[in-house]
Amino acid sequence: MTDAKVVIVGGGFAGINAAKKLGNQKNLHVTLVDQRNHHLFQPLLYQVATGSLNPADIAMPIRSILWQYKNIDVVLSHVNQVDFERRRVVTHNSELPYDYLIVACGSSHSYFGHDEWEADAPALKTLEDAIEIRRRVLLAFEMAEQEQDAEKRQAWLTFVVVGAGPTGVELAGALGELRRHTLRREFHHIDTSRARIFLVEAGPRVLPMFDKSLAESARKELEKLAIQVLTGQPVTTVRNGSVELGPKKIVAQTILWAAGVKAATLNQGIAQRVEVDRAGRVIVQPDLRVSGHQGVFLVGDQASLIVDGKVLPQLAPVAIQQGKHAAENILRLHAGQETQPFRYFDKGQMATIGRASAITQVGSLKMKGLIAWLAWCFVHILYLIGFRNRLLVLIQWMWSYFGFKRGTRIMTAENWKPSTSRSVEAGKNSDLT
Amino acid sequence: MTDAKVVIVGGGFAGINAAKKLGNQKNLHVTLVDQRNHHLFQPLLYQVATGSLNPADIAMPIRSILWQYKNIDVVLSHVNQVDFERRRVVTHNSELPYDYLIVACGSSHSYFGHDEWEADAPALKTLEDAIEIRRRVLLAFEMAEQEQDAEKRQAWLTFVVVGAGPTGVELAGALGELRRHTLRREFHHIDTSRARIFLVEAGPRVLPMFDKSLAESARKELEKLAIQVLTGQPVTTVRNGSVELGPKKIVAQTILWAAGVKAATLNQGIAQRVEVDRAGRVIVQPDLRVSGHQGVFLVGDQASLIVDGKVLPQLAPVAIQQGKHAAENILRLHAGQETQPFRYFDKGQMATIGRASAITQVGSLKMKGLIAWLAWCFVHILYLIGFRNRLLVLIQWMWSYFGFKRGTRIMTAENWKPSTSRSVEAGKNSDLT
Repeated sequence: MTDAKVVIVGGGFAGINAAKKLGNQKNLHVTLVDQRNHHLFQPLLYQVATGSLNPADIAMPIRSILWQYKNIDVVLSHVNQVDFERRRVVTHNSELPYDYLIVACGSSHSYFGHDEWEADAPALKTLEDAIEIRRRVLLAFEMAEQEQDAEKRQAWLTFVVVGAGPTGVELAGALGELRRHTLRREFHHIDTSRARIFLVEAGPRVLPMFDKSLAESARKELEKLAIQVLTGQPVTTVRNGSVELGPKKIVAQTILWAAGVKAATLNQGIAQRVEVDRAGRVIVQPDLRVSGHQGVFLVGDQASLIVDGKVLPQLAPVAIQQGKHAAENILRLHAGQETQPFRYFDKGQMATIGRASAITQVGSLKMKGLIAWLAWCFVHILYLIGFRNRLLVLIQWMWSYFGFKRGTRIMTAENWKPSTSRSVEAGKNSDLT
Repeated sequence: MTDAKVVIVGGGFAGINAAKKLGNQKNLHVTLVDQRNHHLFQPLLYQVATGSLNPADIAMPIRSILWQYKNIDVVLSHVNQVDFERRRVVTHNSELPYDYLIVACGSSHSYFGHDEWEADAPALKTLEDAIEIRRRVLLAFEMAEQEQDAEKRQAWLTFVVVGAGPTGVELAGALGELRRHTLRREFHHIDTSRARIFLVEAGPRVLPMFDKSLAESARKELEKLAIQVLTGQPVTTVRNGSVELGPKKIVAQTILWAAGVKAATLNQGIAQRVEVDRAGRVIVQPDLRVSGHQGVFLVGDQASLIVDGKVLPQLAPVAIQQGKHAAENILRLHAGQETQPFRYFDKGQMATIGRASAITQVGSLKMKGLIAWLAWCFVHILYLIGFRNRLLVLIQWMWSYFGFKRGTRIMTAENWKPSTSRSVEAGKNSDLT
């Protein structure tokens, strides 16, 4: 068997799982390239954004996941484009030749053509996003505590989460807990529990991907946390300090975006030749290859694959299974065999609402309340990569569960300033620092 | 007894301890103002910078330390100046009137008139500094792994720590461990254990504040970690990528500054009227007041107090004791009593060199090796504020001790780029992200 080079672009769920499958395989040299040094456990990102977990609790250096595979190189670099003619991945500082390529760049948030909203309504996709959102949320309470004007104080104490998919629901729920329990006793001039949280959704209900009865129970749980759920209300404008829903306007200093996801864009070379769906995902062949590019696989959030008449959702289990499958198909091709079509094993889905409540749905099996939350905890701890992380996250959850304390409420950078999009503060002109 | 307002500027060791002393005291309303929302346990900052601890492990929200004192307000704000005539602290967004004032702004790093060196040789004083240094250190190994040119690779694998006080020694020791144990197996193209670490000191020996025999043993421990200790060699130039020590030049991509500390500058109003020592510290009266300002106390790293012919060092125990003492003197003044002079209870000092080795010195009692390291662990865990932090730090140390793993090796922001001072990369021009 001849030697072959495999390049994997992206160290998310799909890329990491593809790499593991190819680890220590004879005659294959694998390079995984990512612009970050860490794999991120995105399902728990909202817990970093709301001060429950440390960034490093849900992020693991890619190197430390893959170090035992001697045939895998990890490269920290930024991919600029793929040169399909010459079969090379072109990064900002090198070219990586490949015989087989797995593209797994994931997705980012979509503002539906209103990218100008991003500065005033950040979304949650990276660790940096989470740290910035945490800073804004904590700052809002600090500013409210100092504010003398009742109307302005109200604006600092109003939070709008746009989008009621799992991320929006989980973020709103965590904010609900934060303002009710964790922060309440620490402020003397405001009652943090009276902070208003709006969860705004364009569609007719929350969590549309879940069964109707479960989604209804999730809505009730949110309302128990005094979160105002507004469904059927598309956002028409986002401004610095307010959100408009048609004629209705919510004055709020903190606006968080959880409404849309779009696939990472591909370089034009490939995009011109392949079919792309509405969400920007590339329509892949049943074996996860890109039509016209025999050695190129495309998986995870970037890929659009129709199974039983439905497009597979952009979920971690799909990415994990597709990453593994693409790797297996590369092994088959390299051994002179035919590729196999991808089959999705549906592991169901779950969403958590605050502390000790969740909904889970696996096929026709539905759970809610505490039992669903325990299942949620179990699955999330189980899938966290690295025993150290699991242990520490477990301790912090127990701590938080029994003590109502969030210990990672740290603001870094520009602590005392409203975010840059809002202020034009001069630099440090202080005499007393 | 009439009501009185106390303002404390700074939530470091001095400010927090002053506030606690004044907590729940009748007739006193206390405001603690800081530009950060967290108290920082600075002695362990180098462990964040080298990927052993999370930022939140050594930082605690000031509010959550002081929440139970109903007479204490915590204000997140940036102090611009103190108006002594009108007895007000002027922040970027408010004025805080006071009857008594405690100024405890600490210190920052000094480049001895070469502030232009800072971009190429960052110092370690804040969480942001630690996160940036961690990013540079981790990036250096990533760049070395990718570098084909032997000379350039060597430059990425060369680290210079300037200054051999406790911070410099601890930082160099932690880097020594990191490159020898944690990273070694994770890189396939470089031998991280051969990374060179220089500890450069202008003075004749390392750790001048310690007994000569202990400092000598520390030097030997450093050399066991293959750290090259260069004493009596003042830095003459720092450039992007090199340090010059007179005629000698060390080519190094990572340069860290631990050489100088200067007191936080005071506003000109006060500085013109008070005596300031060479390090910029204000010479205070024996009761910690500033001469000419009867209600104004100045403590911690900003204060210069001569006891038994020696200036008290800029150490946490001094700041803690002075903070408490200033608060007690305010209570005395408020009760119509005389102030008392400050007396320093010397608790000794300690420094750690890598894993399982340290030196400690308390009066004539000297310890070194493992026993000193255990004492060091004990004291540092003991003084960490917040049980949650203590528990988690302990677990992480044990984990790190038995497993040689550092789990917080996360780079955030501009992961893949050399730091901004070094590069003029254009913005994100990628097609494939």
